[in-house]
Amino acid sequence: MNSLTRSFLNKVLGAVKKSRKCEILHDVRVLSNLAGKRSISTLDISGIYPPIPTPFNTDESVAFDQLEKNIKIWNKIPLKGYVVEGSNGEYTFLTPNERVEVVKKASEWAAKDKLIIAGSGCESTRDTIEMTNRMADVGARAVLVVTPCYYKGRMTNQALIQHYTKVADNSSVPVILYSVPANTGIDLSPEVILHLASHPNIIGLKDSGGDISKLGTLVYKTQCEDFQVLAGSASFIFPAYSVGCVGGVCALANILGDELCQLVQLFKDGKFQEAKELQFRMIAPNVSITKMYGVAGLKRAMEWFGYYGGITRSPLLPVTDAEEKIIRDIFVQNKFL
Amino acid sequence: MNSLTRSFLNKVLGAVKKSRKCEILHDVRVLSNLAGKRSISTLDISGIYPPIPTPFNTDESVAFDQLEKNIKIWNKIPLKGYVVEGSNGEYTFLTPNERVEVVKKASEWAAKDKLIIAGSGCESTRDTIEMTNRMADVGARAVLVVTPCYYKGRMTNQALIQHYTKVADNSSVPVILYSVPANTGIDLSPEVILHLASHPNIIGLKDSGGDISKLGTLVYKTQCEDFQVLAGSASFIFPAYSVGCVGGVCALANILGDELCQLVQLFKDGKFQEAKELQFRMIAPNVSITKMYGVAGLKRAMEWFGYYGGITRSPLLPVTDAEEKIIRDIFVQNKFL
Amino acid sequence: MNSLTRSFLNKVLGAVKKSRKCEILHDVRVLSNLAGKRSISTLDISGIYPPIPTPFNTDESVAFDQLEKNIKIWNKIPLKGYVVEGSNGEYTFLTPNERVEVVKKASEWAAKDKLIIAGSGCESTRDTIEMTNRMADVGARAVLVVTPCYYKGRMTNQALIQHYTKVADNSSVPVILYSVPANTGIDLSPEVILHLASHPNIIGLKDSGGDISKLGTLVYKTQCEDFQVLAGSASFIFPAYSVGCVGGVCALANILGDELCQLVQLFKDGKFQEAKELQFRMIAPNVSITKMYGVAGLKRAMEWFGYYGGITRSPLLPVTDAEEKIIRDIFVQNKFL
Amino acid sequence: MNSLTRSFLNKVLGAVKKSRKCEILHDVRVLSNLAGKRSISTLDISGIYPPIPTPFNTDESVAFDQLEKNIKIWNKIPLKGYVVEGSNGEYTFLTPNERVEVVKKASEWAAKDKLIIAGSGCESTRDTIEMTNRMADVGARAVLVVTPCYYKGRMTNQALIQHYTKVADNSSVPVILYSVPANTGIDLSPEVILHLASHPNIIGLKDSGGDISKLGTLVYKTQCEDFQVLAGSASFIFPAYSVGCVGGVCALANILGDELCQLVQLFKDGKFQEAKELQFRMIAPNVSITKMYGVAGLKRAMEWFGYYGGITRSPLLPVTDAEEKIIRDIFVQNKFL
Repeated sequence: MNSLTRSFLNKVLGAVKKSRKCEILHDVRVLSNLAGKRSISTLDISGIYPPIPTPFNTDESVAFDQLEKNIKIWNKIPLKGYVVEGSNGEYTFLTPNERVEVVKKASEWAAKDKLIIAGSGCESTRDTIEMTNRMADVGARAVLVVTPCYYKGRMTNQALIQHYTKVADNSSVPVILYSVPANTGIDLSPEVILHLASHPNIIGLKDSGGDISKLGTLVYKTQCEDFQVLAGSASFIFPAYSVGCVGGVCALANILGDELCQLVQLFKDGKFQEAKELQFRMIAPNVSITKMYGVAGLKRAMEWFGYYGGITRSPLLPVTDAEEKIIRDIFVQNKFL
Repeated sequence: MNSLTRSFLNKVLGAVKKSRKCEILHDVRVLSNLAGKRSISTLDISGIYPPIPTPFNTDESVAFDQLEKNIKIWNKIPLKGYVVEGSNGEYTFLTPNERVEVVKKASEWAAKDKLIIAGSGCESTRDTIEMTNRMADVGARAVLVVTPCYYKGRMTNQALIQHYTKVADNSSVPVILYSVPANTGIDLSPEVILHLASHPNIIGLKDSGGDISKLGTLVYKTQCEDFQVLAGSASFIFPAYSVGCVGGVCALANILGDELCQLVQLFKDGKFQEAKELQFRMIAPNVSITKMYGVAGLKRAMEWFGYYGGITRSPLLPVTDAEEKIIRDIFVQNKFL
Repeated sequence: MNSLTRSFLNKVLGAVKKSRKCEILHDVRVLSNLAGKRSISTLDISGIYPPIPTPFNTDESVAFDQLEKNIKIWNKIPLKGYVVEGSNGEYTFLTPNERVEVVKKASEWAAKDKLIIAGSGCESTRDTIEMTNRMADVGARAVLVVTPCYYKGRMTNQALIQHYTKVADNSSVPVILYSVPANTGIDLSPEVILHLASHPNIIGLKDSGGDISKLGTLVYKTQCEDFQVLAGSASFIFPAYSVGCVGGVCALANILGDELCQLVQLFKDGKFQEAKELQFRMIAPNVSITKMYGVAGLKRAMEWFGYYGGITRSPLLPVTDAEEKIIRDIFVQNKFL
Repeated sequence: MNSLTRSFLNKVLGAVKKSRKCEILHDVRVLSNLAGKRSISTLDISGIYPPIPTPFNTDESVAFDQLEKNIKIWNKIPLKGYVVEGSNGEYTFLTPNERVEVVKKASEWAAKDKLIIAGSGCESTRDTIEMTNRMADVGARAVLVVTPCYYKGRMTNQALIQHYTKVADNSSVPVILYSVPANTGIDLSPEVILHLASHPNIIGLKDSGGDISKLGTLVYKTQCEDFQVLAGSASFIFPAYSVGCVGGVCALANILGDELCQLVQLFKDGKFQEAKELQFRMIAPNVSITKMYGVAGLKRAMEWFGYYGGITRSPLLPVTDAEEKIIRDIFVQNKFL
């Protein structure tokens, strides 16, 4: 689809979205599909994704061979796809070329049925657009765009709306908003998200903040807009599904991908009690590899399950032996080891 | 039950709780009941409670006649009981005598099947114990004890554990922990809560923080301890039930008590889709009378539904006409008006 | 001065203050003094004050004999006066009657030339007014009114202005604003302070936040308004004087009253280098008895200097032996022991 | 000086610094200078620096001609030098090559007596080292290294110490620590700073946090270590000098460079009253172009004083007409316009 066609379709779909008439929207989509032009905004992103870590050699260079090895294992799990160069990918430590290269390789090694979502957010709008399209060119089917955050005092609702609109207008693939206040200090507000949800090339949100009533509100208010909300953590994946989220990007899925997919299946089958029990067992292990010890903890724990973990780039420090024991005990107590 | 008996039972039940053997705990309870001594720790607090506002006359004195009028209406709704002198009761603005008097009157006017839970928290441990027992003497069946917060830099886990233990040791009725970081700046940590959950006279928690994975963890880890977790807000009552909470203390229940009880019934009947839809409609109205406009907003909205609202005590300001319109529009949009 | 006279004078002086004409203001004051009616707003509060702790016996009752003993020692130091029932007085742990009684006794035992400033802040406006006048009746020459903070989401500028205005309108002694965000979570904004500075019965501010440019701005913008800014901590007393503050309420003055008075004298004598050196030595000791270990640390350290310290009321915990050693080492390293 | 010599000198000087013997340190420096090898750690950075904005053309490309024009004006002012690619340089919006190029050009156009300090901080240690040496190669005499901040939950004291130590070990020019919590959410702790102050290639700190007692403590505790503390804002430059800071990196110096240099001269001449008055007039203007409206406000205000301002890169928005009027009024009220 060329840029002009995209621009035209964006305008039509945007107008329809804003009218908030579910029926019309559906009709347009059917027509659009009949015409052989798959709308750029109908990409189904529901399901579970691990935000995969970038493996490093001991000299901190990217260990592409280990990346391939990990992906080959994940390929056998019913994950929906992979989030590449998200926060767990240490993307802020990679050069622009490295970021693109990792996305390229991951796209090649991913099984055909896996969706590649690439983290393309940069501080400036122009860099984000460039990175987005470079990543799309090497295989990303959608991009995850984190909130710019350095000038947080001036990241007003208006500034954020303008940023995401420009990115979505100029992106060759659909855009997913990404709010991760623990890293950025910025919690994307419902007002901004609801405004952006009507943009035809913005198809969803990954929210790592954990405010379940915010997630519910967003699901509720975007019911007619083909807007898909993903939970950003395994700690609240079951309640997130219970309020209508359609998937999750979960650090823990790097380790317990099968179990997370199973949890979702239990939910879909109406086996809520079993889903809940599985959810309960996941919270402490998840916290140990995110809030408590971060990427270094995640990488260490991956090694117990047959994946390559390896080091993080500096300034991130490796977990100490004592910290490793704490994480391991938590996995044992919850019967994952 | 005299103080000595209480002390002995506390020790036995505490030991049993700490052993975390569900079966033994159950046996002891059965024996305890057979012996005709109902354990102080088996009070069932599951269900929906409005944290009732304290009505004031135009001179800011307590309007007891209006309190009676409101309670008579609530008595007809299948609420489990009333939380009296919680945050929505403007308890920090009342003198100690006023706090006790409001609990006394509410206890008298409440229907026989309604449980009175009284907010007895003070900054000092000694004041909290005195207030607790005064409120118990005038009808409170349990007390809700907010975290002390003025010396927040020194409210370490150890200080909070000591505070609640002393209060529970000396309280003639069961104690419910109360964490409300939006008011206190203190979020009661899972470590403290889990430690205190083994105290025989601490039977539950009201958590208004909204961290659903924290609620899930607490339910999970206290499964053998007869510890009951209540959601502190109508905004996440459905996901809270879905992770095992057994009730809610919800400002919105002052206005939409029937609807909240209905939501819980839908959940219990396995009608999750309908429960979810009702939950969705409640979030914005709830936010408008809590985070956005607080007690003044709640009191204004109560008047549209036949209750007495009236003024707040200074320094809380009344809502302006413009603010009232915003709240009203939200209730209309969500079809509650 | 009766209430009517006070009300009239308030109006005249308020109008003059608002006109911001230094000359007129001065003339009115001279006339007012000539007429034999000392303006209520000309109380000079410049100087150093210890915010005195409330001593307790081992059963947590107030140790009035020890209070007398401490005051007799402080009386010999060139302190300007005493702040009674401030944050270091554990005022939130005292009953209303205890608060008044401590002010009464302190007033009696204070040397004639010492000014008693009493902490009269309560959460509600009505309680604050009542406490203010009760304290004034037993000897307080001015009151320090902390920001209400429990309903912090609704403590808008407008609410705070209304609160302080009502208190000042109804107080029989001058009012000093008190901002202590570490305890209250509320930082009184320059807008609110500047608005209130024109009230004839609001004569100053104690600010414990430590934002030196805020202090400077307030001094600068209230130059014509007879508004006196006090630093709320010994950690920045020298830079505070350098931007025009006229005094300090310093926890450390309970222990090192002479040294703090000496620092101020050095500043006034233009011996900046020596003042600076003394300031440097005070920062770590001050931090150890405030931010690090709070009132319990202060009380312990007082004992090394001949004062009665004793216990704090629960839930505040005593310092451990290890903590005591840390504090002591800091005092030794800085040559105060 | 080659890498081996640098490494050796670093070790010797580090050992001396740790011994905290002022006399020895001085002797070593004299010897070092006699030997014709100017120690890398004796760079005198005292004085006033504007953190210069990067000028953009309307298409957001770097306007090098305007940069030259601005520098030619600043060259005539007794500024100590220029901070290039600091927070006001929108460095996070520039590509690595752009960052280096701007430093290169600024170095060329700067008068011979002006010191170029370049902001070389990146999220990863390796990128920071590379950027540091690239900038040194094109003219930077020292680098300003901001705290990494994306993984803020893991930026422990240990991680930060390791980061800065690696950077300083591998930098061909002296390193200045940079703490700017308003942008990064990280306040470099006194513990970390004092530890790093003994590194021979770490010569100072720019602190934008505004905690004057922290600045005083750092000056006091590094008296024997040739460590120079710079205030990071014009709002507290006078009190910062009064506690021993030796300079300032002030956004306002882009506009009022002469006035800031004059303030410092007044301070040095012991004319404290006049220095204080000038300080007072600067606070509100400074706040208007930093906290309130940021770089966009700064750039707009520069235009009133003969400099090129121009646009900011997206997502930063330009100031509106209403905001411009507010800033202008503040400059007028304080008699700078």
